[in-house]
Amino acid sequence: MIETNAKKIYDLVGAEAVFTAKLDLRQYLTGFQSSFGYVISDKEGTTFYTDTRYLEGAQKLLQNTDISVKVLERGKTAYDLLKKYKEVAIPISKTYAPEYEELKSMGIKLVDSLPAFTKAMAIKSQSEITKITKACEITDKAYVEMLSRFKEGMTENEAAAELEYLMRKFGASGTSFETIMAFGENGSVPHHETGMRKLKFGDSILIDFGCKVGGYCSDCTRTLMFGDDNNHEDFKTAYNQVLNAHNIAKEKITENITGHQADAFAREELKKHGLDKYFTHSLGHGIGINVHEFPRLTPNSQDVLQNGMVFSDEPGVYFAGEFGIRIEDTVTLKDGAVKSLTTSDKKLLIL
Amino acid sequence: MIETNAKKIYDLVGAEAVFTAKLDLRQYLTGFQSSFGYVISDKEGTTFYTDTRYLEGAQKLLQNTDISVKVLERGKTAYDLLKKYKEVAIPISKTYAPEYEELKSMGIKLVDSLPAFTKAMAIKSQSEITKITKACEITDKAYVEMLSRFKEGMTENEAAAELEYLMRKFGASGTSFETIMAFGENGSVPHHETGMRKLKFGDSILIDFGCKVGGYCSDCTRTLMFGDDNNHEDFKTAYNQVLNAHNIAKEKITENITGHQADAFAREELKKHGLDKYFTHSLGHGIGINVHEFPRLTPNSQDVLQNGMVFSDEPGVYFAGEFGIRIEDTVTLKDGAVKSLTTSDKKLLIL
Repeated sequence: MIETNAKKIYDLVGAEAVFTAKLDLRQYLTGFQSSFGYVISDKEGTTFYTDTRYLEGAQKLLQNTDISVKVLERGKTAYDLLKKYKEVAIPISKTYAPEYEELKSMGIKLVDSLPAFTKAMAIKSQSEITKITKACEITDKAYVEMLSRFKEGMTENEAAAELEYLMRKFGASGTSFETIMAFGENGSVPHHETGMRKLKFGDSILIDFGCKVGGYCSDCTRTLMFGDDNNHEDFKTAYNQVLNAHNIAKEKITENITGHQADAFAREELKKHGLDKYFTHSLGHGIGINVHEFPRLTPNSQDVLQNGMVFSDEPGVYFAGEFGIRIEDTVTLKDGAVKSLTTSDKKLLIL
Repeated sequence: MIETNAKKIYDLVGAEAVFTAKLDLRQYLTGFQSSFGYVISDKEGTTFYTDTRYLEGAQKLLQNTDISVKVLERGKTAYDLLKKYKEVAIPISKTYAPEYEELKSMGIKLVDSLPAFTKAMAIKSQSEITKITKACEITDKAYVEMLSRFKEGMTENEAAAELEYLMRKFGASGTSFETIMAFGENGSVPHHETGMRKLKFGDSILIDFGCKVGGYCSDCTRTLMFGDDNNHEDFKTAYNQVLNAHNIAKEKITENITGHQADAFAREELKKHGLDKYFTHSLGHGIGINVHEFPRLTPNSQDVLQNGMVFSDEPGVYFAGEFGIRIEDTVTLKDGAVKSLTTSDKKLLIL
């Protein structure tokens, strides 16, 4: 019988019962993706309650595991399932106020399960690393294939469509987030909404993209040039400084440092060139079932980096109305050293 | 100055201030898509607080509107913005327990803004209908183009990739949800996870797909056959009964009936043929910024259908291990009559 993460979380939490309704946490416990369901673990074992839409799929996936699948009876609610317990662990800070109040009013002692989830989900298992690695490989392969498809006059939307198609064709189930394809001055908006701007000679191209495999995300950003108009010396200089900051962070990050320290490696390097004031976001974030999760690599983060974590290394600089540069890999920390899972070339590319 | 939905909600709620942090509600108020931000409306007007990543984009989009854009100062939180108010409206049932408790402990009277959002968002404005219509047109166009691309031996993943590419190429910003592409027996799982099953002669194909335009969703399902192996008489009979149920619901639905009544139109029609027990989900759901929103067209729903609403009409029947049939349009209620926004042909198609 395959042991799922449900048992791991139940043991970590140590409450009479662990109740989980939230989509991403439920997916972590069961490995099954669904828009509705409850997972309840107690000393008898774990049950996944879902509805008829998901029954056949869930039964198939979970048949040899320690999770039983049941359909929630019509008219029954989560409260009916929980009233027999004296103590229930829920992800308190991800539980809506009315549900929380209702459970409290039932006289149930509520314990927070979120610290256990955060801790467990941050350290990836081998099978999770395998899924993320596969997503990163597809991301790389699609990027390389995309390079020959950029054509003068194509819109950001068209280019994003091509890139997403390639990821899908190579085996991704979808994107991790809406692809950012920013041509020229649009690159200076860190979260530019991909649109109808057409590609022209001499444009910089900033692509922030990723895909999902088995419910796990990749996240990658590349910045390149579409032809050289010999009018982009500032861009080229800044590019190499950002790349340097990216690489230095990668070299220096090790286990047991904080997210703040990791962020500072890149920020201090950019500061040497007066670029730190254009680095308007943080160095990175954890990646897994969610494209943004624990740990945070920000100027204020006290999160401690550990082996088995997967996160982004993504310094960037933005010059309003001109261009933006961001260079991002999905990386993992293994034996105290950073290993890139996205591995496409980062040397400045001029198409 | 363009009046946004922020003013509409503020007037509807009638509290001293309206505070909104939730992504979809924030998008409704501002028309701007972002992963972080707060919207606060009071008698002075509306302010959208975001971070530097979104500043330039938000300022550009909101420059001629009644919303000012500010960056939340470093170290400040939403609580700092709210402490000056005696009464604040928040979407209580979509507010996490700790935030709710904190606001209560600050002595702020909390009012629920969600009924106002649900009411306002359910009735679409002309500009919202235009976006959804555009998303539906792209959905239709991609489907028609896709028909000539089905090839024996292609996987569900490959077919989904092609279809998503076409929607993106025709102008969608992404999909509304992960495309369901189910070949043959996989169609009997209502929420089948698209995979590596290969298409073969005589298979049924069930496609549930949709895309986004300007942040608004379309939702469409078509079922067809890939060649006729003369062994699918049950399928053909059931197909026409489901289509009939779909059409009857469409004809009979009018304003001021409940979601329950709407659902019953299709369910009773299927019952005539003994198919109601295979109709294991509900008739439909509202569609807008979210692919599932108010109203619910379910056996228990007391939601009242009104002109200007957009929802799905999607009866389906599922025969485990054999096939599934679902026929779905995104529709709107206008002048008391249902109008389809997805309009591709629904007559049984044998490729």
